[in-house]
Amino acid sequence: MTVASPRRVLIVGAGLAGSLLAIYLARAGWSVLVVERRHDPRERRFAEGRSINLAISARGIHALRRAGLEERVMGAALRMYGRMIHPRSGEPHLHPYSNDPTRGINSVSRSALNLALLEAAAAEPGVELLFERRCTGVDATRGTAEFTIHDTATTETFTADLVVGADGAFSAVRGSLQRTDRFDYSQAYLTHGYKEMHIPPVPHGAHAPFALMPSALHIWPRGASMMIALPNPDGSFTCTLFWPWESNPLSPLEPSFATIRSAAEARAVFERDYPDALALMPTMSEDFERNAAGNMLTVRCSPWSASGRVTLIGDAAHAVVPFYGQGANASFEDCEALVDALAAHPSIADALVAYEKARKENSDAIADMALANFVEMRDHSAKASFARKKKLARLLRRVCGNALEPEYDLVSFSTVPYAEAQARGRRNERILQMCPVVPMALVALTALVGLKWYGFDTLMHEFSTCTFCLMILILTILQFQRVVRNTSERKS
Amino acid sequence: MTVASPRRVLIVGAGLAGSLLAIYLARAGWSVLVVERRHDPRERRFAEGRSINLAISARGIHALRRAGLEERVMGAALRMYGRMIHPRSGEPHLHPYSNDPTRGINSVSRSALNLALLEAAAAEPGVELLFERRCTGVDATRGTAEFTIHDTATTETFTADLVVGADGAFSAVRGSLQRTDRFDYSQAYLTHGYKEMHIPPVPHGAHAPFALMPSALHIWPRGASMMIALPNPDGSFTCTLFWPWESNPLSPLEPSFATIRSAAEARAVFERDYPDALALMPTMSEDFERNAAGNMLTVRCSPWSASGRVTLIGDAAHAVVPFYGQGANASFEDCEALVDALAAHPSIADALVAYEKARKENSDAIADMALANFVEMRDHSAKASFARKKKLARLLRRVCGNALEPEYDLVSFSTVPYAEAQARGRRNERILQMCPVVPMALVALTALVGLKWYGFDTLMHEFSTCTFCLMILILTILQFQRVVRNTSERKS
Repeated sequence: MTVASPRRVLIVGAGLAGSLLAIYLARAGWSVLVVERRHDPRERRFAEGRSINLAISARGIHALRRAGLEERVMGAALRMYGRMIHPRSGEPHLHPYSNDPTRGINSVSRSALNLALLEAAAAEPGVELLFERRCTGVDATRGTAEFTIHDTATTETFTADLVVGADGAFSAVRGSLQRTDRFDYSQAYLTHGYKEMHIPPVPHGAHAPFALMPSALHIWPRGASMMIALPNPDGSFTCTLFWPWESNPLSPLEPSFATIRSAAEARAVFERDYPDALALMPTMSEDFERNAAGNMLTVRCSPWSASGRVTLIGDAAHAVVPFYGQGANASFEDCEALVDALAAHPSIADALVAYEKARKENSDAIADMALANFVEMRDHSAKASFARKKKLARLLRRVCGNALEPEYDLVSFSTVPYAEAQARGRRNERILQMCPVVPMALVALTALVGLKWYGFDTLMHEFSTCTFCLMILILTILQFQRVVRNTSERKS
Repeated sequence: MTVASPRRVLIVGAGLAGSLLAIYLARAGWSVLVVERRHDPRERRFAEGRSINLAISARGIHALRRAGLEERVMGAALRMYGRMIHPRSGEPHLHPYSNDPTRGINSVSRSALNLALLEAAAAEPGVELLFERRCTGVDATRGTAEFTIHDTATTETFTADLVVGADGAFSAVRGSLQRTDRFDYSQAYLTHGYKEMHIPPVPHGAHAPFALMPSALHIWPRGASMMIALPNPDGSFTCTLFWPWESNPLSPLEPSFATIRSAAEARAVFERDYPDALALMPTMSEDFERNAAGNMLTVRCSPWSASGRVTLIGDAAHAVVPFYGQGANASFEDCEALVDALAAHPSIADALVAYEKARKENSDAIADMALANFVEMRDHSAKASFARKKKLARLLRRVCGNALEPEYDLVSFSTVPYAEAQARGRRNERILQMCPVVPMALVALTALVGLKWYGFDTLMHEFSTCTFCLMILILTILQFQRVVRNTSERKS
């Protein structure tokens, strides 16, 4: 104990980000109070359903290691080394995540991870945890947050030097900030919803107790929709259906949650779209009827702090769609950035500004990349052109080395800032797209050299040849320009 | 009176859109209840300050005519035929709004217009008006809205077949919709604020009682900031300063509301930036200190309706920044579209879908055009290149006729849907930008023709000439491509 009274932080939300931040700040000498809306999961486990498995990768591992929790959490993780693409017909094939075969992302149960973090936070001397208290608002200027106690009309008010909203995509703390002056805010729902399904363990088979290869993330890409499956330690798989909410009049055969309502209708879609998975899903009908379809949304806001004493982390600051498996990883990076900023700046207000400066552009970048990855997973990954492009990228990478490290590797297997990963990914894309220009330029060069050395005079009299060369040159330039244009359009 | 009981509508907000909609719906046989947060302006006039003068143009006039109010409102309007640009030094010069010198936009007092609409609504037999009641929430499924009566804790609940949120940019009705499932929402504040200033009438001078020419919208464009002035019927001008909230470290001489706080500091800026206006502003110091700076924001949301019985109009559905003078005009168009949809569809739910379909893309378009017009007004309009471009556009228009009608004319002097005006404006822009390509193509053509007819053989032996022609061609193509690229980038 120091003589000076420690700074006091109130963390609203004991989810992944809130619990990890509590650990960090308690160790940095803060007095920490964490207040959570739900019940204490140490007494009674979280209800399952409606939660996508997490994929923890380099950033998450880095943050867990800093809290001394890497071994505990990663011990129960299943590493996935690539995407196993299940086509409509034919054998599944694996697309490795990286040139380096040891690189993989880690399938982790969200509730188990949350519990581990919460137990570690509770074990810190400076941390107090309160549950079943719903935040009803924050007064940024006074540094207070008000809560109502579950099932009562009783309200409690807590005051702190710093209030952190770690209360998720529908953050109440952010709701209070939204009423302050000049708060930019956007929430954009995906046109698709998700529904959890289940593949149980099997007693026999090549991967028993797993029904499918456990070292891959399984994808059934079907254009506008898809299903994925992630392995669990008990040998089961958690499958997630991603279907549009509404039907598309232009392709009436596509499933949507609006048109496919009954288990019987769903079974017909599964028989057509996911036949190999259906064979492994004895509870398909029950799962489809029991599990509600959930929403996915992207939330962006700015500024992340108010009055120099309230700020946001994790989904509260930047909810992202789950398709890059980076939501939890990004939230953990927020915790590291916030605790680093608080260590570097004596003034909390300065620290909050530095924290947002470090994170805002990176969280915008991962939000964009996660949306783009949905299209890649459900649509592109099924196409031969995509496999060719990936092969070309891998080849170029072998030739050019780390300078051409792909976006996926930078995001999942490094702690390079997301915005830099995105920028480098775009540059790689530009280089890849220029590859078709090379043969055209060679043809044009050959024609010109031929003209010069093997009968310049004669050929020049042939206006048609001259025109031909011109055309080739022009086509080359046009192609080059098209590529540059496409890239810059995607950028904007 | 018909025997069947009329359909009942509850309009939240008695501003411009709410009042006009009340008139339309009462005449269409609805029973109308309008509930407003503020006091009744018929008893006590609105406080002035913090309200930009309105510019009513073709769309607004169309809607007012339909309500039989054109003469009453436009009688007190002052028509402005162009922008009077006041440079830092030198004489002001007029940029007409249109090739047609009779076309102008109309400076109208917001409070006078609101009062006229409210009085007309009150005069309709089917309309009931209630004031000083703040909406605290809407229950879309039951079609109810709850209000608290001013200065009391008393609440009132009203039920209707249709509830319309006409309660402005910070709409409480929209706030309730925001909590429904999958409601996309964004609010984006401008980096600039506004502050009202005043130029009083003068007894003598060329335009007395006006201190400046009353038939123009006056602009002092200064790059990152500007001031504008609109005439009032009493001979005064309402000026509005548009300054950034924060200072720009890269151009420390630019004014901002953060750096220029005192009247003395403001006077120094006025002496440098708006010397001719300052000479006409005896109350400059008092105005600057007394009038608070206001925010401007763009609000977008979707869907505009919930449960088939609650919807939004005007700023509640789509707040826009004021730089195209189209906020009120767009709101009036909403009223027309909503009443037309309700007339065309027996089911209110179907009507609300049709209304949003008719208006959503158009309100998005005017929101974008209003943001773009800010840059044009404060920055481009001061530049010689802008005047040249406008001249070229007018010339092309004379040659090509209505096919090349400029965006400004389509937005302000026609009722062509905003989205179409925007698309046609972009096409015009593309054509304008291609004009510099024409002389380059001519040079290239001339060179080629020269090559063919005046010594093909000799010239062809000169490799340098051949290269020269090639270079010209390539440059032409590059220039062409650059133009196309720029246009498509702006589009995205």
